[in-house]
Amino acid sequence: MTLYLAGVRLPVRHTSMRAVDLIRKKRDSGEHSREEIDFLISGYTRGEIPDYQMSAWLMATWIRGLSGVEIASLTEAMLHSGEVITFPELPAKKVDKHSTGGVGDKTSLILAPIVAAGGLKVPMISGRGLGHTGGTLDKLESIPGFNTALSLQEFRSVLAKCGTALIGQTAEIAPADKKIYALRDVTSTVENVGLICASIMSKKMAEGIDALVLDVKTGSGAFMQKEEDSVRLAELMVETARRMGKKAVALITDMDQPLGRFAGHSNEVIESIEVLRGRGAADLRDLSIELSAWMFYLGERTKSVEEGRTLAGKLVASGEALEKFKQGIALQGGDAGVIGNYELLPQAKNRKEVSSPSDGYLAATNCMQFGIALAMLGGGREKKEDSIDFGVGLEFHKRIGDRVTANETLVTIHYNSDARLADAISLIENSFVFTDQPAPPKKLVRRLVGA
Amino acid sequence: MTLYLAGVRLPVRHTSMRAVDLIRKKRDSGEHSREEIDFLISGYTRGEIPDYQMSAWLMATWIRGLSGVEIASLTEAMLHSGEVITFPELPAKKVDKHSTGGVGDKTSLILAPIVAAGGLKVPMISGRGLGHTGGTLDKLESIPGFNTALSLQEFRSVLAKCGTALIGQTAEIAPADKKIYALRDVTSTVENVGLICASIMSKKMAEGIDALVLDVKTGSGAFMQKEEDSVRLAELMVETARRMGKKAVALITDMDQPLGRFAGHSNEVIESIEVLRGRGAADLRDLSIELSAWMFYLGERTKSVEEGRTLAGKLVASGEALEKFKQGIALQGGDAGVIGNYELLPQAKNRKEVSSPSDGYLAATNCMQFGIALAMLGGGREKKEDSIDFGVGLEFHKRIGDRVTANETLVTIHYNSDARLADAISLIENSFVFTDQPAPPKKLVRRLVGA
Repeated sequence: MTLYLAGVRLPVRHTSMRAVDLIRKKRDSGEHSREEIDFLISGYTRGEIPDYQMSAWLMATWIRGLSGVEIASLTEAMLHSGEVITFPELPAKKVDKHSTGGVGDKTSLILAPIVAAGGLKVPMISGRGLGHTGGTLDKLESIPGFNTALSLQEFRSVLAKCGTALIGQTAEIAPADKKIYALRDVTSTVENVGLICASIMSKKMAEGIDALVLDVKTGSGAFMQKEEDSVRLAELMVETARRMGKKAVALITDMDQPLGRFAGHSNEVIESIEVLRGRGAADLRDLSIELSAWMFYLGERTKSVEEGRTLAGKLVASGEALEKFKQGIALQGGDAGVIGNYELLPQAKNRKEVSSPSDGYLAATNCMQFGIALAMLGGGREKKEDSIDFGVGLEFHKRIGDRVTANETLVTIHYNSDARLADAISLIENSFVFTDQPAPPKKLVRRLVGA
Repeated sequence: MTLYLAGVRLPVRHTSMRAVDLIRKKRDSGEHSREEIDFLISGYTRGEIPDYQMSAWLMATWIRGLSGVEIASLTEAMLHSGEVITFPELPAKKVDKHSTGGVGDKTSLILAPIVAAGGLKVPMISGRGLGHTGGTLDKLESIPGFNTALSLQEFRSVLAKCGTALIGQTAEIAPADKKIYALRDVTSTVENVGLICASIMSKKMAEGIDALVLDVKTGSGAFMQKEEDSVRLAELMVETARRMGKKAVALITDMDQPLGRFAGHSNEVIESIEVLRGRGAADLRDLSIELSAWMFYLGERTKSVEEGRTLAGKLVASGEALEKFKQGIALQGGDAGVIGNYELLPQAKNRKEVSSPSDGYLAATNCMQFGIALAMLGGGREKKEDSIDFGVGLEFHKRIGDRVTANETLVTIHYNSDARLADAISLIENSFVFTDQPAPPKKLVRRLVGA
């Protein structure tokens, strides 16, 4: 028996592992072995370790941190708490992309059909939006009939037929992460790079992929607002993927302003279709092509990233990518008619314009506030239980570096209820910073990690 | 509504207090207001804040610490979670002593009758032993019939008649502390001076006392082994008592070796009676007189501590203190015949001697190990649910600085079961350090805090 008294380990006989001792170890900045992390995670998942011990351990971990080895152990422990999908029936390489989330980030809707059209398989297990961020699942659900709650069997079948399929996290996938995430949410232990990394990677590694492209957002609309924090998270994720035998690369990309011209569910689906038609906002198109190119390269479809860019461009220009998107919608029960008729998507009834107070140049935005304003209007979730008004959206008319004149429209709000409209307008108005001289335009891909 | 996302406080409307935000504040090294601590403690006591949030807050607090103002707020919040006793019917000053615990520390049994015999009131709410320490409640319960589970009404009545009364922590006294302590025990958040201070002081302040003498142990048998940690805890406790309008002083006293000659329940009762007869070990007698003297002085019974020492000595010499002890036992249902006949107390059947391996001088002991060995033999609790074998004990024949010859007896073990005897002997044997030259004897009172 190991007996602790007042923090002193007493020289009595050894006993089996105990959660209270592991909490103490992390509290005192110790590094856990793989066996210790397995004990904590499997015990918690099975309900043998109670919430109050896990939350104490999470807080100690939040403050003291996790080493690279600990993060890999935690990722594997959470991964193996549930089912790990494999696709022995599909010889093609499986690749996916994960974004840390932002405002207007809809690249998944664009790159999945591009990469599938190029011959790779893209099995996506995706999340819902919360707070200022949107979620890919929610966006696709704005398409009438679209079913994201496929069984694993259906998921496998759609993937085989179409090359891309998308579902939410099921009860079978990384249940430990699901349980731990819910606890972190109510104990202020969310924002820690080690815990975030393990949470993301345990789900992504369950997808049975060969390679992963990470889009780590940085700036005023990202969870990690400072570039060094984004880089640190990116490094940890790439390192963790590689420890687990997967190819990975991370792009640190700009989230100092919304990606593309629209935020809001129906609006983002429309904008994605526009990009797949070879139109749409340049930044969104460029980033979608860039991420697709890395997926082609890591999935060994092309010999270089440059070749991947060319291939992605061709698949958009030929209409093959759009056709793949249409096929995917239909296979998941959605109304593929939305491709040709945007009016089949939910639309907000009202429009309200937010205008510039003066002449100048748009220098910066508090991008997160746009996401909050959208959620306040019903176009996002403030709490997990909230439902979403798919038609609500924001259209952004100006980008950083643009010249703006007084009373020129900055944002068009698409809304249904005006219950909180005034608050939302106020948030949006206060999210723009103007200067007299033009600011240099923002670089979209700030840095590569692991390339 | 205050909305946090990814650690960023968003500029949305203000809402009511939330536990998750207070956890975040402490995690980020913030200082809580009195209202915030009240919210946490009263919410937790009422069951509105769940264990998992409190344990996350406790871990954040353990690591980040509490300011003096926060400790006072926490103490008051826990104090007012239950009943605060007052004694309007008793004009005499009420004083108490609290010890942080050690091996062989039985001064409460001696000083309570001395001080009561001197005319002050000593209302003691005491604790049980756990791990290497003994508890006053347990020691008194080795006297056949002695009832420590008095109602508050009975407690009040015994105190009025006798001048001293002793009970355990009831459900009415500081229920918040009771609930929080149980949680700290299983989440490795016990050993933090701020939390320890608030836990002790919330119970002591519920006793309705005017003054408190603190005996803060330091050394190898104490919870705080380093003198600076003991001093820090002492300073916090004195400061907290004074913020709450009570007189207080702390003595930092030696626990590098057992106090007195005996450890174990019946044995300690006997040794206490011996001291009250004017006999017994010098260190135990001296410390009991010293603590009594401070109680007399803070309770305004004497004009100086020196006068207090003289008074305490007289009350022992006259037999008045022993008589008071006898009266107290009888009033709490115990067999007062034990005073004249030690055989009425439970005795262990067997004796085993631990001898010195060589000649030399006793230089140091690992005093905590004596307490652990005692618990292993049944003379203490390893877990809260354990019962105690009152007759089991250790008799110490040598003190630090003493000359020892090979094969001379160091410790006599009084035991019943030999199930773990070999392990206990091994612990005891390995707890002595010898040198060739005599070590300077240990000073009993190392320092005064708040005097």
